[in-house]
Parts: sequence; C-alpha cells; structure tokens
Amino acid sequence: MIKVGINGYGTIGKRVAYAASMQDDIHVSGIVKNTPDYMAYLASRSFNIYVPDDDKIKEFEDHGIKVKGTLNDLMESSDIIVDATPEGMGMENIKIYKKKGVKAIFQGGEKSNIGDASFNAYSNYNESFKREYTRVVSCNTTALARTLYPILNDYGIENLNVTLIRRATDPNDNKKGPINAIEPSMSFPSHHADDLKTVLNLNNVYTVALKAPTTLMHVHSIEVLLKDDAKIDDIMESWLKYNRILLIEGKDNFKSTAQIMDMARELRRDRGDLYEIAIWRDSVKVIDKRLYYVQAVHQESDVIPENIDAIRSLSGIDKNESIEKTDKSLMISGGIFYGKE
Amino acid sequence: MIKVGINGYGTIGKRVAYAASMQDDIHVSGIVKNTPDYMAYLASRSFNIYVPDDDKIKEFEDHGIKVKGTLNDLMESSDIIVDATPEGMGMENIKIYKKKGVKAIFQGGEKSNIGDASFNAYSNYNESFKREYTRVVSCNTTALARTLYPILNDYGIENLNVTLIRRATDPNDNKKGPINAIEPSMSFPSHHADDLKTVLNLNNVYTVALKAPTTLMHVHSIEVLLKDDAKIDDIMESWLKYNRILLIEGKDNFKSTAQIMDMARELRRDRGDLYEIAIWRDSVKVIDKRLYYVQAVHQESDVIPENIDAIRSLSGIDKNESIEKTDKSLMISGGIFYGKE
Repeated sequence: MIKVGINGYGTIGKRVAYAASMQDDIHVSGIVKNTPDYMAYLASRSFNIYVPDDDKIKEFEDHGIKVKGTLNDLMESSDIIVDATPEGMGMENIKIYKKKGVKAIFQGGEKSNIGDASFNAYSNYNESFKREYTRVVSCNTTALARTLYPILNDYGIENLNVTLIRRATDPNDNKKGPINAIEPSMSFPSHHADDLKTVLNLNNVYTVALKAPTTLMHVHSIEVLLKDDAKIDDIMESWLKYNRILLIEGKDNFKSTAQIMDMARELRRDRGDLYEIAIWRDSVKVIDKRLYYVQAVHQESDVIPENIDAIRSLSGIDKNESIEKTDKSLMISGGIFYGKE
Repeated sequence: MIKVGINGYGTIGKRVAYAASMQDDIHVSGIVKNTPDYMAYLASRSFNIYVPDDDKIKEFEDHGIKVKGTLNDLMESSDIIVDATPEGMGMENIKIYKKKGVKAIFQGGEKSNIGDASFNAYSNYNESFKREYTRVVSCNTTALARTLYPILNDYGIENLNVTLIRRATDPNDNKKGPINAIEPSMSFPSHHADDLKTVLNLNNVYTVALKAPTTLMHVHSIEVLLKDDAKIDDIMESWLKYNRILLIEGKDNFKSTAQIMDMARELRRDRGDLYEIAIWRDSVKVIDKRLYYVQAVHQESDVIPENIDAIRSLSGIDKNESIEKTDKSLMISGGIFYGKE
C-alpha cells in the first residue's frame, strides 16, 4: 500500500482524497485542513484530520473536530504528500517535504520548475517514474494534453491555436467576477501555451484565454494544423482508444456546458464530477489538414485521475496498470455517449 | 435631402433613427412601431409615428400616442426604408417595398440574397451604389470586415480562423439564456464564415461561435495567416487609417468588456453606445506570418454607421464623403485611446 497524505482540502484536495480512497493499492493516511469550517467537519467523517501546526489543534477541538496531529506527523505516516494548498504555496511547502524526505505531488498553479517533471498520464507518465517531486498540470492544460496527445501521436502537429473560454470561478465561490462581462487574460499568448509544452512535445502553440461569467466548465475552441492528413473518422478512432475522452453530440441535447454537467450528475458520479474531457462530435472538422474541434472541461475534476496516476508514477508502478486501475475505480469509460450509465 | 423611413424601432431601429437625424443630408420621415409601449411613447417625442396598418391606429391613440399614418403612407413620403423588423421578416416586407417602388436597407438577420448586395462601408460600399436593395451584415460580421479589410488590403489573407464569444442577449432582454453556461453554436463553422465572404474577398475562413452569459459585448479571438509578412507596427498603421477601429490597452484598465462599455458611457455617446470596434493592443502579435488579435464588439451599435452609409450608397453619394459625414456627425474618431473625449 502506498500511504498518501493530502495537504489542503479545497476543490482539488477533497477530490483527490476521495479518489485515492477508492484505490486498492493506496491508503489515505490523512488530510491537512487549515480552518475548522463545515468542510473540515465533513472531512473528519471519512479521513484523519491533521493541522498545519500545534497552534491550530485547540481551535479545531473547540469546534468539536478531532485532530490526529500536525503536518509533521502526517508526513511521518505518508510515502507521498499530494499538495493541494492554494496556488503559489508549493514553493514554500517543498522545503518542508524535502527536509522530511517525503515525496510530493504539486498542482498546476505552481511554477513548472518546482519538481523533477510535469505530469499528464497519457503523454508523459514515465518522466515522473520513481522521481521525488512532480506537478500535475492545470485543468486546462490537462484537457489539451489529453485530447491532443492521440492526434500528435497519430498525425503529428505542425501548428496549434487554442481559444480558451474560461469559467469565471468555481461553483462554491460567490465573490469572484466577471459577473456580466468577458475578460481576456492580458497575456498573449496566455500561459497555457508554455504550460502545454511541459507535458506535450510541441513547437508552435498559440493560446488566448477569456473569462466568461459562468461557474460550470471551461470550453476550448481548437485548431490543429496536422503534419499528416486525416479524415474525421481517423481522428475519432484516435480518440476512442482513450477512456478519458468522451464524445457527445448536440442532437442528444448537449447544447451547452449546462447539459453536460447535468449528465454527470445523472450518472451519479461522485460530487456530480466529470473526469473525462467532453468533445462535441458536431464540431470535429478537417479542412486542408486543419483539424477543428470544441471541447468542454470540468475544471474541478479533470485533473483528479492524473493526481492518482502521479502517485503511482512516483512509486514506480507501470503506466498502463495505473491508468487502468484509476479508470476502473472511478468508473471512467469514455467513448461515445449514448445514454451511457 | 434623402427622406428615410424606419420600419421597426427595436435595438437597431431606434439607433438608426437617432443617427439618421444627426445627418445634414438625411431627413427621418418617420418610424413604424408595432405596439404602443413605453418605447413608442418616447419615440413620439422625436419622430412621426406610423403603424403597420389601419387596425392599429385606434390602439395607439387609446394610449395617447399620435399616429401620423400607416407603413403605406410612410413609404410615400420616403426615398428609402430602413427595415429593422425582427429577423426573417424582411423577406415578406421586401414584396411591399417593391410594389411601392421604394428602396430599402435590410439587417444582417436576413438571408444574404435578399437584396442586390450585402454592405460594409469600408470593404464594399460601391457594390450597393445606386442599387435598390442592400443588406447591412450583422454586428459580428461588420466587426470582422472592419478590422480585417485593412489587413487584407495591405498584406493579403491566406487563412482566417475566428472564435466568437457572443453575449447571450441584449441588455433590455430579461428572458434569454444561457444564465450559467457556455453554449457553442451547433453549426461548425458558424454562419459568420459564409457571411463574412459576402462583404470581404476571402477564401479560407473558419469560425466557431459560443454564447456566454453576458449582455454587454461580443469578443472575437482572431488568427490571420497573412500572405505577406508584417510587423506589429505595420499592422497598427494599417488600422490607424480607419476611424471605426479603436485601439485600447490593458494598462489603462480596459480589463474586460465592462470597462469598455463604461468608457463609452463616460464619452457621453448617445445611449452609451460604442460604434467603433475595440482591439486590445496587448493582444496584437505576429508569429511566422500569423497575426493574432482580440477585439470587442458593441452588438447594439457597431452597425449603425453602416446603416447610414448604406442610405448614401443606395442614393449614389460618394463613399469617402459619406463615411466622413457619418463619422463626424456621430463623433467617431477611432485611433489609440488615451483618455480621449
């Protein structure tokens, strides 16, 4: 059993904790929570609760939440820490993990040079194999790597151009905007172009990111200039080899991100999450070696299978074995959607 | 004086009526309103009110709104009718205009074959010159034609790829969604690709359109594969020759469409409108003959100057004379924004 501690229990941390607990070769030794709120209380029903340091113990116990120990204690009972603390804190935390000699996995908000590698299960599982530190790239980069890797493998990519329409904030945040505007990221290209290159062997990439007032999903509009020509059916075949890609259609009433997330709830997935990247089949076109498609990304959950695989990669477990275990445990089946259950 | 009647007084009709009334060579003979609501009352303070047919007269007068006559009467006192009725009604209306022998201008919601030509002031003013019927293309197509025409002229366009993030509905509509989702148009490419070709001489165009829950503006993310190479400064120079293009920057706090529309209000433009297409200078990049930029489009008003110029084109008035008059009367000055007033 690989013993895993989760440092941080927000959008990503709580999902990694759940997904890790579903694996037969991974044991969740505990989670670190910073404040004794409703989420800490709910977490304590499933996991051992740890706090950053001794000062916090009384605060938690005053709220009736039993504390097992501090981050220091958690590291002692863990082989790997999944760091899901807020963006930018990883750089400080890695010093603590190094001092203690515990492996760690960081999230996409951290700088790409924080560990030994960046991680996407399909495209570069082996770059993190038996290493100490890796970083699972962000939800957007994960989505791009996942649907582009089959294309890159089978046809080559000469040039890539992506427009990312980003959700403004996550569903549990009632403070962030825009609430009635469209807001381009003022980096041109946006950081996704460089980030994608950390997990996918690409040269010419341009990305533009724009925030829209929605909380549900990101949507990407993608143009790929292929090296080798391909037909639409060839492209479909490339994608269908991978479980973490789901093909949906407008005629099944998948008219917007609202219906996609509703479908995920109906599938009774944990938290109503959708781990797969959903591609609209209607949108897949090939014109003069240019492949066009539109995909939707559940920003809260698409990186969760990658976090689980990153745990196994650092632990020296084979790529295909890991991906298969993760997919099976989380009921990830991909393919073409036809009222699947 | 060119006598102009406006059939329909919604988002576009009321703005064309105002803009036409600001011209020294155009007289607004009246406007046709279908229902005696608050908008009809406000219109009656500035314009003669006409109704579709005799049956409506009593209904309006019961609401205290004086009616000058019917559409038939308005056509008799007009050289040109600007048809701003709801999308798709133009095909029926044109029969009435033809029978009466009155010229007419339609809006972008009508089929492209409704008249003798489609219209954009910069790119094809002369195709409507002295003709009977023309169609001002939609707000999105107008925006694309306007900023691409200088590029096409100066450098040629090999390939064009546009992602349009559309506002869900106009500010005065409280019914239409999406209210928390991103909704791709299920036409791939979207209709904008073909529509653009009606006013701009292009071959390879691909467009994807997605609705976002906002009412303020559309935003376009554009990739142009140039025929001739160009530097960013060259591109700027091409645009700066045209008044209906405005260059804005993130550092001036133009971070989203919200600040752009706020600026238009501060300029004390009629109705807080922005006739110009706003391009973020930050977004303009040229990489290997590929030009990238992002622009914002005020969907309620960017076609208004085009409607005025279409009136003069049908009337046989010179292109440059018309554009200059329109720009001056509506205080359209374009250029680079530096706290301009």
